[in-house]
Amino acid sequence: MDKIKPRTLSGFMELLPPQQVIFNMMAGKLRESFSLYGYTPLDTPLMEAAEILLAKGGGETEKQIYRLRKGDTELAIRYELTASLAKYVAMNYSRLTFPFRRYEIGKVYRGERAQRGRFREFYQADIDIIGDGSLDILSEAEIPSIIYKSFTSLGLERFKIHINNRKMLSGFFEIIGVGSAAPDVMRVVDKLDKIGAEKLGAALVDELGLSGDQADGIINLVKHQGDPFEVLDKYRGKSELFDRGADELAAVAHNMAGFGVPESFYKIDLSIARGLDYYTGTVYETMMTDHPEVGSVCSGGRYDNLAEYYTDKKLPGVGISIGLTRLFYILQEQGLLSGSILTAPADVLIIPMTEDLSHAISLSTVLRGSGLRVQIYGESKKFKQKLSYADKLGIPYVIFLGEDEIKNGMITIKDMTSGEQTTASPGIVVCGLEAKIKALREGKPIGG
Amino acid sequence: MDKIKPRTLSGFMELLPPQQVIFNMMAGKLRESFSLYGYTPLDTPLMEAAEILLAKGGGETEKQIYRLRKGDTELAIRYELTASLAKYVAMNYSRLTFPFRRYEIGKVYRGERAQRGRFREFYQADIDIIGDGSLDILSEAEIPSIIYKSFTSLGLERFKIHINNRKMLSGFFEIIGVGSAAPDVMRVVDKLDKIGAEKLGAALVDELGLSGDQADGIINLVKHQGDPFEVLDKYRGKSELFDRGADELAAVAHNMAGFGVPESFYKIDLSIARGLDYYTGTVYETMMTDHPEVGSVCSGGRYDNLAEYYTDKKLPGVGISIGLTRLFYILQEQGLLSGSILTAPADVLIIPMTEDLSHAISLSTVLRGSGLRVQIYGESKKFKQKLSYADKLGIPYVIFLGEDEIKNGMITIKDMTSGEQTTASPGIVVCGLEAKIKALREGKPIGG
Repeated sequence: MDKIKPRTLSGFMELLPPQQVIFNMMAGKLRESFSLYGYTPLDTPLMEAAEILLAKGGGETEKQIYRLRKGDTELAIRYELTASLAKYVAMNYSRLTFPFRRYEIGKVYRGERAQRGRFREFYQADIDIIGDGSLDILSEAEIPSIIYKSFTSLGLERFKIHINNRKMLSGFFEIIGVGSAAPDVMRVVDKLDKIGAEKLGAALVDELGLSGDQADGIINLVKHQGDPFEVLDKYRGKSELFDRGADELAAVAHNMAGFGVPESFYKIDLSIARGLDYYTGTVYETMMTDHPEVGSVCSGGRYDNLAEYYTDKKLPGVGISIGLTRLFYILQEQGLLSGSILTAPADVLIIPMTEDLSHAISLSTVLRGSGLRVQIYGESKKFKQKLSYADKLGIPYVIFLGEDEIKNGMITIKDMTSGEQTTASPGIVVCGLEAKIKALREGKPIGG
Repeated sequence: MDKIKPRTLSGFMELLPPQQVIFNMMAGKLRESFSLYGYTPLDTPLMEAAEILLAKGGGETEKQIYRLRKGDTELAIRYELTASLAKYVAMNYSRLTFPFRRYEIGKVYRGERAQRGRFREFYQADIDIIGDGSLDILSEAEIPSIIYKSFTSLGLERFKIHINNRKMLSGFFEIIGVGSAAPDVMRVVDKLDKIGAEKLGAALVDELGLSGDQADGIINLVKHQGDPFEVLDKYRGKSELFDRGADELAAVAHNMAGFGVPESFYKIDLSIARGLDYYTGTVYETMMTDHPEVGSVCSGGRYDNLAEYYTDKKLPGVGISIGLTRLFYILQEQGLLSGSILTAPADVLIIPMTEDLSHAISLSTVLRGSGLRVQIYGESKKFKQKLSYADKLGIPYVIFLGEDEIKNGMITIKDMTSGEQTTASPGIVVCGLEAKIKALREGKPIGG
């Protein structure tokens, strides 16, 4: 028979077992962190009627959407989780309780040109809190705390959450008289990090037709060093929008300590704009201190209207998104994934040394009853190969069960790390193992 | 703006938050059970190059596959997890250690005609163990134990695992001289449950041209009551294949007790055939005792060649699959899902009674540090509405933090179930809560 060459599509991350265990651990830690803040898990379909996903329409993204047809239905595969959430909330409005907090960690699809570190299938981990008609600033203040908790639970130690406010920026553009160019200015300001202050100034003047004074004013604001509230105070009283934005920013900053975010982990950064028109209040970006080249690994912000394409209800919210697949890829590339996590499929391998397997089987049942993950090696191989199986998989303990052991009601256990081998009664072995395995399972996916 | 009616495609299960929590709990229990037997988690792409998924080709299934094109690549969306596993193992052969045990709980897609209880997007929970060249019968004996552990961990109390052996059946067909009709006979025998013995006999004689004696012999075997090994012993010595199958069946049955499967939960059932040609040894079906109309909720068996479309390597294995979405749907329809599981998004709702939220925020941070899931209610609503929010979501505890409490360093906590309200120091409240919440979180998704 002619064979088909087995391959995985480029841009689709498929992991070997040890890496998959670490990836799953990362997703698990995020789930735990999100849950601590009272977010409920959702799992929306990957496919939707095309008109649902294309409601927003336009732009580069639309070209990247995977579309298909089945019967007479036009289908599309989700390219982010927000449209699915908007549909869900609009559809289930009367059955949900607001503010509605949900997280979803799910795969999304983008038909981008394949290149290193770019994925066509990737996980996003999103949280959003949606208000019914209104949503208090408290929710915006809470988000950095969730980011902090999430990343520290992963084991990331050096990162900084950058926080700004779009009302403040828009108000500032009002004050300096930028007028209808404001959205374009917002998009250009967002590039400050990439292009630097000089090129930003040039772009503002040459491309957007701002005056030199206007450009200087903007650069002066976004490049400000030191206490950001000092510079904000200078502009107060000139624009209602600006004042509201500055107040919101102050409220968010004021509560960071209460929310448990140490000062070194966040920064009020007046240059963060988040290009999208979508955002209307606090915006967030999260930078890895030692890898600024990676860009933001967790971004988001406040928006006023989640589901405007599907409902007249005003549903303001605030949310953030982590590109989990990309983050995992970066951590792996940078060698930042933990090397000490137990990624073996089992805690114990039982190697029966007798023809009759019944004692090995009974022992495996007892060990599983104590929560231990157990394999029995049942293949007819040489002893050395059996031991090598445990070794290759990194199974930390091997139990030998020979005639002598069975006769004496004992088992022999080998610690594969230290090489130490002891013979004892099963009860004593189980007791000791439980604690040791628990310790091996603890730890964080990053570092160590 | 014209609104697009928010809708979810028919055949796509999308759950409300409380049901989603129970669904996730079910998936979690399965993951735990599979892990206890040393299976490692995989997460393969949902899309593959079309030639990979269509390698097997033909049949009803092929028509149901969702296909699409992006650029010049023909893509297909997986309709089961086995093809992805076969590709994975063939592709990563040299990097895996055999026997290779993996589980995958993932979505698959079938463009079936939509009808009640049939899904186009649904979860399958699969485990497989793959040998390199050979695989000991021990693996086949272990599978019923995994099924038993999985279903009891879900809380299902009344089910039975039916076990048979295809070698035995094929050997038996040899003995009675069925000849080349054997595969068809296998497929017809598989329908016994649905059509009954009389119609089976008629089908064997009229459709497949068997003699009356042959048909009687088959019916005599598959309808046999009492000790199955008695009837098997009668045919021993007449076909090597039959004898091997009967030996395998005996080996599997012999080890059930050691594997911890009580006698009432399994049955050697000589009528189980599993229509597919694919299976070559032990086969399994799992019936819910009180709902035989549902059919098997967990099936599988031994096969000789996992990845023959992709590699020359002989990779025998044994695996089972649970249609998780369908199982959940049935349990929900039958009212079998637990009503006592804590499905609320939070354990505690803090309702601040002062303008300044900083005490509420600090308290939330302390409680989260103890692993409690906490929301702060920050919206400007009437007190009654705030309490009603906790009530609607089923949040079990509400903490009130007013000026008196803050002044005295105390908090007032209301048990929403009993209505009992107490005021105490935060330390004492946290201590008490941890244990109570732990108890609320325990339990099984089915029953109670």
